[in-house]
Amino acid sequence: MTDNVVMTRLSTEQADFSEALDALLDRRMIEDPQTSKIVADILHDVRSRGDDAVVDYSRRFDRFTGSLVSELEVSKAQMQASLDSLDASLADALHTAAERIRHYHEHQKQPSWQYEEDDGSVYGQYVVALERVGIYVPGGKANYPSSMLMNAIPAKVAGVDEVIAVVPTHYGDDAGGAGRLIFAAAAIAGVDRLFTIGGAQAIAALAFGTDTIPRVDKIVGPGNVYVTAAKKQVFGEVGIDMIAGPSELTVVCDGKTDPDWIAMDLFSQAEHDEQAQSLLISTDKEFLDQVAASIDRLLPTMERRDIIRSSLQNRGALIFAPDLDAAMRISNQIAPEHLELSVAEPELWLEKVRHAGAIFLGRHTPEALGDYCAGPCHVLPTSGTARFFSPLGVYDFQKRSSIINCSPAGAARLAPVAETLAQNEHLQAHALSAAWRIPGRK
Amino acid sequence: MTDNVVMTRLSTEQADFSEALDALLDRRMIEDPQTSKIVADILHDVRSRGDDAVVDYSRRFDRFTGSLVSELEVSKAQMQASLDSLDASLADALHTAAERIRHYHEHQKQPSWQYEEDDGSVYGQYVVALERVGIYVPGGKANYPSSMLMNAIPAKVAGVDEVIAVVPTHYGDDAGGAGRLIFAAAAIAGVDRLFTIGGAQAIAALAFGTDTIPRVDKIVGPGNVYVTAAKKQVFGEVGIDMIAGPSELTVVCDGKTDPDWIAMDLFSQAEHDEQAQSLLISTDKEFLDQVAASIDRLLPTMERRDIIRSSLQNRGALIFAPDLDAAMRISNQIAPEHLELSVAEPELWLEKVRHAGAIFLGRHTPEALGDYCAGPCHVLPTSGTARFFSPLGVYDFQKRSSIINCSPAGAARLAPVAETLAQNEHLQAHALSAAWRIPGRK
Repeated sequence: MTDNVVMTRLSTEQADFSEALDALLDRRMIEDPQTSKIVADILHDVRSRGDDAVVDYSRRFDRFTGSLVSELEVSKAQMQASLDSLDASLADALHTAAERIRHYHEHQKQPSWQYEEDDGSVYGQYVVALERVGIYVPGGKANYPSSMLMNAIPAKVAGVDEVIAVVPTHYGDDAGGAGRLIFAAAAIAGVDRLFTIGGAQAIAALAFGTDTIPRVDKIVGPGNVYVTAAKKQVFGEVGIDMIAGPSELTVVCDGKTDPDWIAMDLFSQAEHDEQAQSLLISTDKEFLDQVAASIDRLLPTMERRDIIRSSLQNRGALIFAPDLDAAMRISNQIAPEHLELSVAEPELWLEKVRHAGAIFLGRHTPEALGDYCAGPCHVLPTSGTARFFSPLGVYDFQKRSSIINCSPAGAARLAPVAETLAQNEHLQAHALSAAWRIPGRK
Repeated sequence: MTDNVVMTRLSTEQADFSEALDALLDRRMIEDPQTSKIVADILHDVRSRGDDAVVDYSRRFDRFTGSLVSELEVSKAQMQASLDSLDASLADALHTAAERIRHYHEHQKQPSWQYEEDDGSVYGQYVVALERVGIYVPGGKANYPSSMLMNAIPAKVAGVDEVIAVVPTHYGDDAGGAGRLIFAAAAIAGVDRLFTIGGAQAIAALAFGTDTIPRVDKIVGPGNVYVTAAKKQVFGEVGIDMIAGPSELTVVCDGKTDPDWIAMDLFSQAEHDEQAQSLLISTDKEFLDQVAASIDRLLPTMERRDIIRSSLQNRGALIFAPDLDAAMRISNQIAPEHLELSVAEPELWLEKVRHAGAIFLGRHTPEALGDYCAGPCHVLPTSGTARFFSPLGVYDFQKRSSIINCSPAGAARLAPVAETLAQNEHLQAHALSAAWRIPGRK
């Protein structure tokens, strides 16, 4: 336990730096065929047998002892009772976090828009909220009432009619402990219905609907490999937010931040689970050694030191870059979920960021503040997917319809263009449908 | 050929109306396991063998006779030469359509935003374009240069650095005919690189990269079942836009539009392919009969009458609803890709629309105008997925990063909240990482 942590060291001075970094990141997403098959069978079974299948899997995988899905529902009264039973300081913290999350996400709401052309035609985009969504809040190696807030509040801000949350079954068995926090968070977030159903069976129930669980239009939130595989398989039949992998943090530091702070920031990522990845890029070799020393000194004081050690040794790295421009290039190659710019004048470096889920600027912005209460959502693209995914947000719970409203004059103006193109695509009905709106053509 | 078209008739007066409509829509997405397996093998092979595998599959499935992927690339000079060779009227139509598509999509561009709190902390969202995207433009039963414009222009408006288009191999064999139109459209749209590679092998090459084809961050555009299955399988490793099914149109009509116009609008959808779906909902039973008569009279004059007949008989329907409120409820149950509101004062009915990909308002706005040149994108959510998907748009080619920039005072204010929540989640490193930013705590 007092052994030093042996972390990977990388440097841009290595000839094979880029390959070594790629190997460390290990981003190839190869699905395990066995997991896919297990999940496909569960999906098929829940689609066919509905509630009965949900009960069976919850009994088999999650030690559920009842016989009805309705026993797995947590009523609004129970959510509220859980909230009422919390210590005032904890309830206050949850309320403050919720209020800040709500405030931030109000900025994301997208309005409908339209414009009129001089012929009187109107074009635009009509934006409405999704009707019903499911949110998955995982259990796993920690207990995340904060995730309930982070998933549900953007949906409510968007104006979703009905938000259905699912959490692993064990929360129902522990309604006085971990469950109480989750249920209280659900009350604060305004969740409409809550079921203690986990795993692929929860995703299946939300995607297809059962007699007890209504079918939703979109499922969001991270989960374990079964949940992730199930989300991917139902994608298309319902919407999903993203494909989530292990959580990760990249810190870019100019060497002027307290090394203990940086060590603790890396720990905060590593303590999630062994697969979490904490990377530090610095332009100061001595600073990398100082952080390594801080890690060794601080690790024995940490409650989750075994997880942290495993994560740092197997997945972490201390990376030297000759200057901050190089550091930013490495960061963009990583496309991190969380990026801390622990540097002087961090705003100046922001424009060098091309790929990151969330960017934490300055020495006083540790990722942990973003995890709980800064305001932005902590459901973020992982494993390099910040190249194309965005944080979960209000926009995930809104959808758009194009609006086309041609005046007779507008139709007469556009129809010849459409007719020409349709004829060249050999689509005669398209050509006539357009042309007949020209006066005198039909 | 002169036989009457036998179309399904539905009415809300039927006791089993809702079930009958669901049966007609047939929205269960069950993937064919054989297709999935074939596609998985192709993906695996292209990932392993790169260019060689792309060549092999293009030879096997697409009658490619060469031996190098580079032979399948269409240069910018070739694209421009194709454009230069077009008739002026056709080139003008393409330019007009492109200009209108560009103008509409400029409205979709989302800016970065931020706000400052009174403690000097800044929160916001940083919006940037994707770096490199792939667009798939299908071949199939028609030839769609318009799709090249509709896919590529929103990407260019977003500011994507490199747009790589792929089209089926046969366009390369027909560089003087159908290929010329597609290549010309690519030139107008500003496509950066173009390959005549189709099918799952094209999706694989874009998703994983090969020696010749660069790896992209997102793949958009509809295709056949192999393309769709491939996009779904690579999703997560790259972004994709949506899961596309057959195209469909729902017309809601108050009975006051020329029945020939409505018949031709239904034809314009049906002529795409046999699986296309054309539905008419009217509050006027006689009007439904008039449209049926128009269909019978007009069908023999149509070049694609066999496809139209098959589509209308197997997938189409004439639906009676007692009033427009009921018609709108049916339309929302359908969640159509294209919705024509061919009614008086269509703006008043817009707010009753909850689910539709694109909405065409008024008697003078046939879907065909939207397909080519109104401005909005014609890549739209199909098969009821307008419940959660949106039209392809500039937002598909932009991504967001959350911005958190805490001042020392802001960190000191947030840290106690984060600390309380982290302690309750038993995440000690999170708690300390936050708390150490409070003066005097470390």
